Amino acid sequence: MNKIKAGILGCTGLVGQQFVRMLDRHPFFEVAFLSASKKSTGKRYSEAADWVSGACIPAGMGDIIVTEAAPGAMKEMGVKVIFSALPSSVARKTERNLARAGFFIFTNASSFRMDPDVPIVIPEVNSDHFELVKAQSGDGRGFIVANSNCSVAGLVMGLKPLSGFGLRSVAVTTYQALSGAGRRGVSSLDILGNVIPYIKDEEEKIERETKKALGQMGDGFVRDGGLEVNASCCRVSTRVGHLESIVVETEDDPEIKAVIKALESFRGIPQSMQLPTAPERPVIVANEANRPQPVLDSGAGVPARAKGMAVTVGRIRKKGKKINFFLLVHNTIRGAAGTCILNAEFAVKKSRIK
Amino acid sequence: MNKIKAGILGCTGLVGQQFVRMLDRHPFFEVAFLSASKKSTGKRYSEAADWVSGACIPAGMGDIIVTEAAPGAMKEMGVKVIFSALPSSVARKTERNLARAGFFIFTNASSFRMDPDVPIVIPEVNSDHFELVKAQSGDGRGFIVANSNCSVAGLVMGLKPLSGFGLRSVAVTTYQALSGAGRRGVSSLDILGNVIPYIKDEEEKIERETKKALGQMGDGFVRDGGLEVNASCCRVSTRVGHLESIVVETEDDPEIKAVIKALESFRGIPQSMQLPTAPERPVIVANEANRPQPVLDSGAGVPARAKGMAVTVGRIRKKGKKINFFLLVHNTIRGAAGTCILNAEFAVKKSRIK
Amino acid sequence: MNKIKAGILGCTGLVGQQFVRMLDRHPFFEVAFLSASKKSTGKRYSEAADWVSGACIPAGMGDIIVTEAAPGAMKEMGVKVIFSALPSSVARKTERNLARAGFFIFTNASSFRMDPDVPIVIPEVNSDHFELVKAQSGDGRGFIVANSNCSVAGLVMGLKPLSGFGLRSVAVTTYQALSGAGRRGVSSLDILGNVIPYIKDEEEKIERETKKALGQMGDGFVRDGGLEVNASCCRVSTRVGHLESIVVETEDDPEIKAVIKALESFRGIPQSMQLPTAPERPVIVANEANRPQPVLDSGAGVPARAKGMAVTVGRIRKKGKKINFFLLVHNTIRGAAGTCILNAEFAVKKSRIK
Amino acid sequence: MNKIKAGILGCTGLVGQQFVRMLDRHPFFEVAFLSASKKSTGKRYSEAADWVSGACIPAGMGDIIVTEAAPGAMKEMGVKVIFSALPSSVARKTERNLARAGFFIFTNASSFRMDPDVPIVIPEVNSDHFELVKAQSGDGRGFIVANSNCSVAGLVMGLKPLSGFGLRSVAVTTYQALSGAGRRGVSSLDILGNVIPYIKDEEEKIERETKKALGQMGDGFVRDGGLEVNASCCRVSTRVGHLESIVVETEDDPEIKAVIKALESFRGIPQSMQLPTAPERPVIVANEANRPQPVLDSGAGVPARAKGMAVTVGRIRKKGKKINFFLLVHNTIRGAAGTCILNAEFAVKKSRIK
Repeated sequence: MNKIKAGILGCTGLVGQQFVRMLDRHPFFEVAFLSASKKSTGKRYSEAADWVSGACIPAGMGDIIVTEAAPGAMKEMGVKVIFSALPSSVARKTERNLARAGFFIFTNASSFRMDPDVPIVIPEVNSDHFELVKAQSGDGRGFIVANSNCSVAGLVMGLKPLSGFGLRSVAVTTYQALSGAGRRGVSSLDILGNVIPYIKDEEEKIERETKKALGQMGDGFVRDGGLEVNASCCRVSTRVGHLESIVVETEDDPEIKAVIKALESFRGIPQSMQLPTAPERPVIVANEANRPQPVLDSGAGVPARAKGMAVTVGRIRKKGKKINFFLLVHNTIRGAAGTCILNAEFAVKKSRIK
Repeated sequence: MNKIKAGILGCTGLVGQQFVRMLDRHPFFEVAFLSASKKSTGKRYSEAADWVSGACIPAGMGDIIVTEAAPGAMKEMGVKVIFSALPSSVARKTERNLARAGFFIFTNASSFRMDPDVPIVIPEVNSDHFELVKAQSGDGRGFIVANSNCSVAGLVMGLKPLSGFGLRSVAVTTYQALSGAGRRGVSSLDILGNVIPYIKDEEEKIERETKKALGQMGDGFVRDGGLEVNASCCRVSTRVGHLESIVVETEDDPEIKAVIKALESFRGIPQSMQLPTAPERPVIVANEANRPQPVLDSGAGVPARAKGMAVTVGRIRKKGKKINFFLLVHNTIRGAAGTCILNAEFAVKKSRIK
Repeated sequence: MNKIKAGILGCTGLVGQQFVRMLDRHPFFEVAFLSASKKSTGKRYSEAADWVSGACIPAGMGDIIVTEAAPGAMKEMGVKVIFSALPSSVARKTERNLARAGFFIFTNASSFRMDPDVPIVIPEVNSDHFELVKAQSGDGRGFIVANSNCSVAGLVMGLKPLSGFGLRSVAVTTYQALSGAGRRGVSSLDILGNVIPYIKDEEEKIERETKKALGQMGDGFVRDGGLEVNASCCRVSTRVGHLESIVVETEDDPEIKAVIKALESFRGIPQSMQLPTAPERPVIVANEANRPQPVLDSGAGVPARAKGMAVTVGRIRKKGKKINFFLLVHNTIRGAAGTCILNAEFAVKKSRIK
Repeated sequence: MNKIKAGILGCTGLVGQQFVRMLDRHPFFEVAFLSASKKSTGKRYSEAADWVSGACIPAGMGDIIVTEAAPGAMKEMGVKVIFSALPSSVARKTERNLARAGFFIFTNASSFRMDPDVPIVIPEVNSDHFELVKAQSGDGRGFIVANSNCSVAGLVMGLKPLSGFGLRSVAVTTYQALSGAGRRGVSSLDILGNVIPYIKDEEEKIERETKKALGQMGDGFVRDGGLEVNASCCRVSTRVGHLESIVVETEDDPEIKAVIKALESFRGIPQSMQLPTAPERPVIVANEANRPQPVLDSGAGVPARAKGMAVTVGRIRKKGKKINFFLLVHNTIRGAAGTCILNAEFAVKKSRIK
């Protein structure tokens, strides 16, 4: 298979850097285009990015000149797929235009997530939602596929395996990493030895995106099915890995063994399709009493290309019909760049990208 | 009033240090006796304690020689009241013996908390539970009064004001400070840039002690009234101040204004009795969007003697009949030494100590 | 004595906040004017400042409306003294103009420090340098007095007592607190679990300001006397308190006892004049093997008004003619606002402000 | 070549874990024996070690049963080489006995380092010191080869390339990582937001071991050549990587270019012998203004087996005949287990192990 040419929008930030890292020597895609804000335009990527996403910038990427996202230029280069780490403030206009120009957009921006014709896809959970894009493009033009908020990406990976027990309500309380706020989002004086019990708009995103992502596809729409979601969010002093304390109320009253088995044995479409970035086991159950921990478990996932794509759960407890557990998700990989790439891999395998 | 002579057991640890600090120039009590484990016996307090509870050891305390807790010696010195920061492993035997010898014990140990004749008293919440001690002492001997687990002390201060709306269930997720594990309880390599989703026995304590502390006193017993309590606990990298994310389900459906007012206007017996260590407002409602924070709010409480005795709540949100909020409690003051002292002040004012 | 009216420039930042806190109920000065950048102008101080310098804003200060630093308005209000926490980029023009307009400026900005007619005054060390201002003002106009860089303020307090042994060279390596970089100067992702071995321009400032501050006053000029100064600076993850590892090479070869005594017994002009912000002992020698520590010792200094004005030294070691020790200085108090205020107090007592 | 059977003493601690990790699939050695204190004896390694040295324990190692270090049993298994991470308190007796029993000991313990017949070998720097072992073993019995203190291992890697300019004196001030104190050596409450300016015996070790390691071999002895070494040590809140601020006074006055070139072009015997754990470039010169940093640079070294074996230097400055720079060394790899392994590889290639 010839590799498909791809561009990255917002390539210098933390999620942009993960795109650059994860698309290096990717079997399906070849990065042909790096774009960022004016401040970076015209610089070599190694100068533009304040790289913190591993020991060093992948060979070859550092010398690419960062440019503006000009549709014409991208077309000429043969770019078909666009991975976007744009800030939401600029994503709405830019991405819509690029989709209309025929590009296939896989975006981490929140701008379109609640639009009825844009799916929020976490492919282990709801790859059928991909169909929503048909409403976007009647005539062979491009489309926009969103991933979810970073906390939601983890949460739904933990909830989907339990859906057989009947999900009635979920309460989630988060311990979110500094990288979720961007490269310079949290000042050290604010967080040293501290916890900040507020992340702007985060609780609202978790509540509405979780409902949509877990909703039922039918007649070209997603119905959210009435799951009650209650979120409370804090920033803590960790680098990567959002930890979530989750209480799920179920219709049924399964034994705890059945709960553990449902989580451990969970596999999704990306696993059966053997997508390159799919982790062999999307949900890992930690046996130790004090896991998952951000420092130890954020990078979960094999093979190497899927590092950070598995979520880890632990401390599973049952109290009546309530299941309590902790879940850890790598916020800039599974919660951002990694799921976008997995979505694109799924689209390629399904021949949605031509 | 002549000051009542008091002794402190376990005077060198973090809670013991708070006893020493808070009893300095106390209007009711005079520290006459400092006791700790064999390692410290015979040393001056300033040598025995690895002092970290303020700029310096209160004048006069540093030169006291730490001794064994010998009932005879204490009696001779005229000691009546004992404040105990003993570890639970030794508290059970020692404290029972001292109570039988006629001392009035105010203990932070968990050993007796679930005994039916030992009350868990947080006096703003359940000063009537104090009556339980009658079952301990028929003949003028001493008694044991426990305070609650540190997280519970905060939780019930936040729940009591809402009890008028009918408490159906509460789910609490914690962000607990390092000092809760003692002077050397958490290794730096375990917690630097990390969160540990496990604190041994803590969730069980929160669940059972909250029910007891909020139970109804009647016929000489405490009935817990069936409140459902669901706790999930984490250690985070903060020095002091346990932060709690709380979801309360109520019978009624009050407006959020009524919820805020109930919290803000809450006053208890210690306030009406003007006990020395009672904070003027036991529950402070923070208006800022990102509060309470451990670094900024742990020391809440006026006057100076009540610093750390007020809990701070914030981010109050309503979703149907569920009330969400964050609460911060100073774990070694309100959650430990401070409430013990407040209990003793209450007992003095009620003429229970003679 | 009637209080002298004072204004604060740059009142919202960390140093500005220390000015506000330390001038509250000051015996000599009364804050009549708060000024900051356009972003803050017109707001109440409590809204404009992101206050982090203690439990709360001093009573009365929070309601002052932040304004522009208009000389006319300040004159009308009777303001004579100005404390400046302006960033260096704007200080040069603003402060010169205000001095020409007759105001007495005590500035923390680095802009004028190396001007031959502006003294760098740390009054325990070189109050005689104050005379330099004569070259500024021939005709009753105002003047500018600078304090030193925050690390230098500590360093010279440790060196001055040793000057009797003959200072030949000094090498200093620093562990500087986050607050030295301003309210949002260091991103949490940069410093969590890390050390950054670079602070822009800091080493140059330490080298040249130390020489000037320790120089000899004569004939209206300061001569630096040839002391060799070698500085290496790092940012570490502490809130306040710059720790310095110092190696001094002396002409003489004193016994270590004599070194300790010289440090302990050191007193300066502010002590003999009993200035309000002067610490009783400007240099405190810690006896413990592992002190000074930022968390424990940054607030050294009595009486209460001088908290943070004393430096703490420890681990004094001698190797031949080299004296090694650690020194801790509160960077926003002794290293910034506090020394400016002490300078102003000195000026008042010397009748330099009329 | 048949692999040489090796045992590891003190296999559960941080350095022991690095031995286990680095000897996994080693081309020269095969781990046949894991030993630790009584607490661990009889347990599977995966249970005995509180593993924190990478994602997981190398395959096969986890199931090895930890045993006592019985010379007879080791002999029977064919073990020849022993890597020791024993605490110094027990190393002296145990290691001497094992050497007498014919084993070849490569130890990280400090017990024998100053013995005249035990070399401190950092093979890029002083592989000729290896000859000292001849004085230990006249008759084919085993020997003991020590590596240096962790800070010294870095320091001498930075000094050796400059020896051509004539080393007169060196002053080093350290920022040492928590892992240097062992798995639970530093309590979180001591170090959170703090720096501790004291590490027991560290300064003395740095001063004497640096002199010995840089000494001249001759007539069967090492002469230290009179280099003056002045050390001041602090613990900071980093996981791995000791940062050192170094001032070297030289006889010559080279241009800074020549200094940089000397560091960059430095290669030692391990590089020319292409030992498996030797980094291609033992000293890496960082060009960025704010490097080396513990978080970014501790793992320096290629190929993969040499990760953590290169030191990184940066911020090279010259002032007269003084050269200032920062240096970072991975304390548990280059500063401990890695250098022991490199020493053993050197010994194998030199046919010293039979």
